[in-house]
Amino acid sequence: MNSLDEFKLIERLIPMLHGNSRVVAGAGDDCAVLDLGLAEEWLLFKTDAVVEGIHFTPETPPSAIGHKALARALSDVAAMAGTPVAALVTLALPPGFDPERVVGIYSGLNALAARYDVAVAGGETTTNPDRLLLSVSVLGKAPKKSCVLRSGAQAGDALFVTGELGGSLAGKHLDFEPRLREAAWLAEHYKPTAMMDLSDGLAGDLRHMLAANGLGAEILKTAVPVSKAAREGARERAQNGAGNKTALDAALSDGEDFELLFTVAPGRTVALMDAWKMKFPGLKLSCIGRMRRGEGIVLRDKSGFHILKSKGYEHFKQPG
Amino acid sequence: MNSLDEFKLIERLIPMLHGNSRVVAGAGDDCAVLDLGLAEEWLLFKTDAVVEGIHFTPETPPSAIGHKALARALSDVAAMAGTPVAALVTLALPPGFDPERVVGIYSGLNALAARYDVAVAGGETTTNPDRLLLSVSVLGKAPKKSCVLRSGAQAGDALFVTGELGGSLAGKHLDFEPRLREAAWLAEHYKPTAMMDLSDGLAGDLRHMLAANGLGAEILKTAVPVSKAAREGARERAQNGAGNKTALDAALSDGEDFELLFTVAPGRTVALMDAWKMKFPGLKLSCIGRMRRGEGIVLRDKSGFHILKSKGYEHFKQPG
Repeated sequence: MNSLDEFKLIERLIPMLHGNSRVVAGAGDDCAVLDLGLAEEWLLFKTDAVVEGIHFTPETPPSAIGHKALARALSDVAAMAGTPVAALVTLALPPGFDPERVVGIYSGLNALAARYDVAVAGGETTTNPDRLLLSVSVLGKAPKKSCVLRSGAQAGDALFVTGELGGSLAGKHLDFEPRLREAAWLAEHYKPTAMMDLSDGLAGDLRHMLAANGLGAEILKTAVPVSKAAREGARERAQNGAGNKTALDAALSDGEDFELLFTVAPGRTVALMDAWKMKFPGLKLSCIGRMRRGEGIVLRDKSGFHILKSKGYEHFKQPG
Repeated sequence: MNSLDEFKLIERLIPMLHGNSRVVAGAGDDCAVLDLGLAEEWLLFKTDAVVEGIHFTPETPPSAIGHKALARALSDVAAMAGTPVAALVTLALPPGFDPERVVGIYSGLNALAARYDVAVAGGETTTNPDRLLLSVSVLGKAPKKSCVLRSGAQAGDALFVTGELGGSLAGKHLDFEPRLREAAWLAEHYKPTAMMDLSDGLAGDLRHMLAANGLGAEILKTAVPVSKAAREGARERAQNGAGNKTALDAALSDGEDFELLFTVAPGRTVALMDAWKMKFPGLKLSCIGRMRRGEGIVLRDKSGFHILKSKGYEHFKQPG
């Protein structure tokens, strides 16, 4: 299946799934949000898997595999401004697997778990005959008053991303830090109206957020934070005649950035930017545009407005 | 890895895992038990996976795959006398997978979820290039006063199993019913002192329970409930000269029974057996023996006492 088919299949599956009164937000958000009867908090529930040959290679250091597997799920907890509490690990191993590699995987996973006080409360080992697969489930909590969903944005809200985008495959996809502290701070002080983590690339993920809000967005081309890895990748491609994907294209479309994409009421933009620089001097925050009525993503530069398509973008007249 | 290596590896891994104050019971019990701040309830957290070629075949009806994947995790919730609340599904699919098969898997899973009011609150699809793998995570609740762990049994406690054992691969492993209702009733009325579900075979699983309790057990050979499938399998093997594994051997060692194994204070045995017959007339309950001081499993028959080994059993003199 390509990813388009996958999204179609998911759309077909979601309505048939059994629900109950505990579910505050189900399939379609970063985590499932559940009301289990706590007075002031919701539970967050997330599962995610990494597969050898897809998300890492046989040469990837084992500790990096473990780090990545847990970090992906924690990134989803961060996207709802939650606090992770416990994780379970399902490790599917080929027969004859090296125990030292398993210990290495767990040590990477465990180091990250310890950093955010996530209990690794057990798990299963099973057999996957052809390749290693690691599935991680995470349980977290979020205060009801500050839990942030993908929906909730208004036209006019300012659109932000943390960090720099693109070129994650050059290394960041293995050692990124889930933005748990940043998200909790944001939720406490600047109440994002919508938030998600970037896993499928800015353009694709922003489309999911727009769909959840029934809105469109306008992005200022020069405001998109392009990573050094994205620029180096583009330079190498140009030198080697390997296609015309620019650094901006990479920042818009490369997956596995694991940064936060969020919206904030427009009046708070300047205060947020100032406070952020004081609080997180080592991590860039960029206001890349704003939410608008309508649908789709409009990219703005000196030459005018362009509609951002899923494959590239095309010029069009200024929107009404 | 064979299963012995797997247990050794798990023993080595467990002490290195990060814990926190939320964990009531972690790795080693049927579910992780977490205290998330509810006054009267603990949360149960479980993950489990089924893999094509290991737990089902390419010919297995898709709805049976979905049923089995969820039922295995629900069986672990039952083993703690809990109530499942929500499930997440990670579906790892080969490229070019038939969407109808995915829909079939979800319909089997969803039918079971609906029967026990488990919300299917989302999940992920990813790629497993060579074979289908389905990982299910379940979140449940159990009253603190009646949640049953693997530990808690005393020497002298009577040992019970539900249903009939052995030969599950002939069919039951695909359509078994998790013993959620039975376990909840047991916990409410007869307070089992220890409980687990049978997934690796009675002898092996009982050993895990004994280790958790620092006890041994004595089993009455004629009391072990041998399934029709186990008897038919033994008859076929005898006819075909395919080894000397008896029906009792199958009942003791075959995996995937997914029945409950539990202990009850000895004075309540008769009352439980009587009440059970009224409450669950369609499901057998057998008192197969008792917990005793010491270690290991002793099998008792007309000829005397035998030590049950991991491979077969050997005669020995009556224990002191």
